[in-house]
Amino acid sequence: MHDTVSFDIEHNRLVLIDQALLPGELKILSLHTIEEMEAAICTLQVRGAPAIGVAAAIGLAVLAREIEGDYEAQLLCYAERLKATRPTAVNLAWALERMLAGSHDPESLARQAVSIWEEDIETCRRIGEHGSALLRDGDHVLTHCNAGRLAAVRYGTALAPTYVAAEQGKKLHVFADETRPLLQGARLTAYELAEAGIPVTLLCDNMAASLLSEGKIAAVLVGADRIARNGDAANKIGSLGLSILARHYGVPFYVCAPFSTVDFQCAEGGRIPIEQRAPEEVTQAWYARRMAPADVEVYNPAFDIIPNENITAFVTERGVLLPQDLSK
Amino acid sequence: MHDTVSFDIEHNRLVLIDQALLPGELKILSLHTIEEMEAAICTLQVRGAPAIGVAAAIGLAVLAREIEGDYEAQLLCYAERLKATRPTAVNLAWALERMLAGSHDPESLARQAVSIWEEDIETCRRIGEHGSALLRDGDHVLTHCNAGRLAAVRYGTALAPTYVAAEQGKKLHVFADETRPLLQGARLTAYELAEAGIPVTLLCDNMAASLLSEGKIAAVLVGADRIARNGDAANKIGSLGLSILARHYGVPFYVCAPFSTVDFQCAEGGRIPIEQRAPEEVTQAWYARRMAPADVEVYNPAFDIIPNENITAFVTERGVLLPQDLSK
Repeated sequence: MHDTVSFDIEHNRLVLIDQALLPGELKILSLHTIEEMEAAICTLQVRGAPAIGVAAAIGLAVLAREIEGDYEAQLLCYAERLKATRPTAVNLAWALERMLAGSHDPESLARQAVSIWEEDIETCRRIGEHGSALLRDGDHVLTHCNAGRLAAVRYGTALAPTYVAAEQGKKLHVFADETRPLLQGARLTAYELAEAGIPVTLLCDNMAASLLSEGKIAAVLVGADRIARNGDAANKIGSLGLSILARHYGVPFYVCAPFSTVDFQCAEGGRIPIEQRAPEEVTQAWYARRMAPADVEVYNPAFDIIPNENITAFVTERGVLLPQDLSK
Repeated sequence: MHDTVSFDIEHNRLVLIDQALLPGELKILSLHTIEEMEAAICTLQVRGAPAIGVAAAIGLAVLAREIEGDYEAQLLCYAERLKATRPTAVNLAWALERMLAGSHDPESLARQAVSIWEEDIETCRRIGEHGSALLRDGDHVLTHCNAGRLAAVRYGTALAPTYVAAEQGKKLHVFADETRPLLQGARLTAYELAEAGIPVTLLCDNMAASLLSEGKIAAVLVGADRIARNGDAANKIGSLGLSILARHYGVPFYVCAPFSTVDFQCAEGGRIPIEQRAPEEVTQAWYARRMAPADVEVYNPAFDIIPNENITAFVTERGVLLPQDLSK
């Protein structure tokens, strides 16, 4: 499978799998203007916290090499515009800050972008190793949204344990919440697992309680867009409810994320900004016919906060950490 | 608004609002063959436990008046075929048993069907009165699926308190789960409340935890397809999870249903048969494009069971009852 995000250094392009067209069509995008990059992030052609961070880093490196005129002012303006595309995931800000922390000349920025890209692969691979150690051959796991290959460069976060387990000869069966409104579970998780030959069963989000009540799910694995210092974690809308259900049924709930997802400036989950998205995502996106009356009011937050008490552990590249151990 | 189900005695027709076309088109169906009636129930042109019961009763009366040949055998065969259309809702079996309990001649059956129809309106009105007494002016309530006018003849069950409150001058604001896979909340609840001028906000099912965590919801109101003797209740898939979330946040969870929904033959929820429906409802129904990979495995139960411990009370035409008081 093609990497989700990559850097075509020869042609100076940010290269992305267009996730808005999956699973129907596999199209590769090749971008080099700020407008194209902003649109790609805002319309979720690239999405998933780690993938957005890597895409922004490569994007900034691509833009830097084409600046004419006031280099430094243009560069900082591009970084600001990329950072403003989505508010919740911390990886976007983290990657851009890291890009600007060193020398700003185009070649240094290109090297830094390549480092961030390489580290994402290595980090996700380690998350997979630590996560796989928590799972046994034959386990059924439940995931929400897409925190797989398509949410990072190669291994993903919440699905990394599944891929590493498969390499180790352990067979897991993944149950995937479809994840309304944008159906990342149905469109992306089901797609990438099927591509990889890993058994997957799709369900609507509201069926998770019924599935958990049957006692066949060994663990819930999700990603995170931002983790507060106290271990509260922001993730795709629906994660909060799933964490309460997992706790109710005594099923371990693991948040799988690179350590860079921890925002030490943020004391607790209540301070994480939650993106509110357009009503049309709920009332008509993806549909042939409008599925709700015209002008109906819509509640459409993109994320919610999982309280630390509902999180069994964080699976990071540094190992499996308890919420209270994040700041140690 | 047209009654959801009615009996055109003059032309001997079962008359239904075609709910599969809402909210885009308001079409009235006029049926008189067993095949049309079976299809209407199976494809959810008529749905909602009370509405299905009334429709089956009127349907049987319509069929009885057109039987040629062996009257009694034909009549029982029609009743069996109607009963087999959907397994979970008890009202279907209840209404047909009541039809067959008395005299089987066509005119008696027609009178019995009219009685069942009239009683549904009266029963739902009383559910509304008892439920409205639990709510205060300005309250926000959350509902799942559609247990409104479109699920019964006129008032509905879970939405009846809202309609009666509106008649009493109390303003309620309803938050409606869209209710995947068939979107009865988006298509039907949002539609009928907007038609009635009652404020409604639509949300995806997985947003309910986030909404409840904000502390603005005074009560959750749902219907039921079958209630076991011990108070466990079967309702639209997603009700179980919602009941756990409501309990977690200390929000009262009311099951609004006619007393005929209690199945005294059924000791507890685990014995209620759960209808499994077609994968296509999840992977492509309503969509212009297929929204999940071809051949993906799908978990698609239509209902789940709310344990009695999660039910604050039942709101019935006989009043507000605790789960342990159902059998008294």
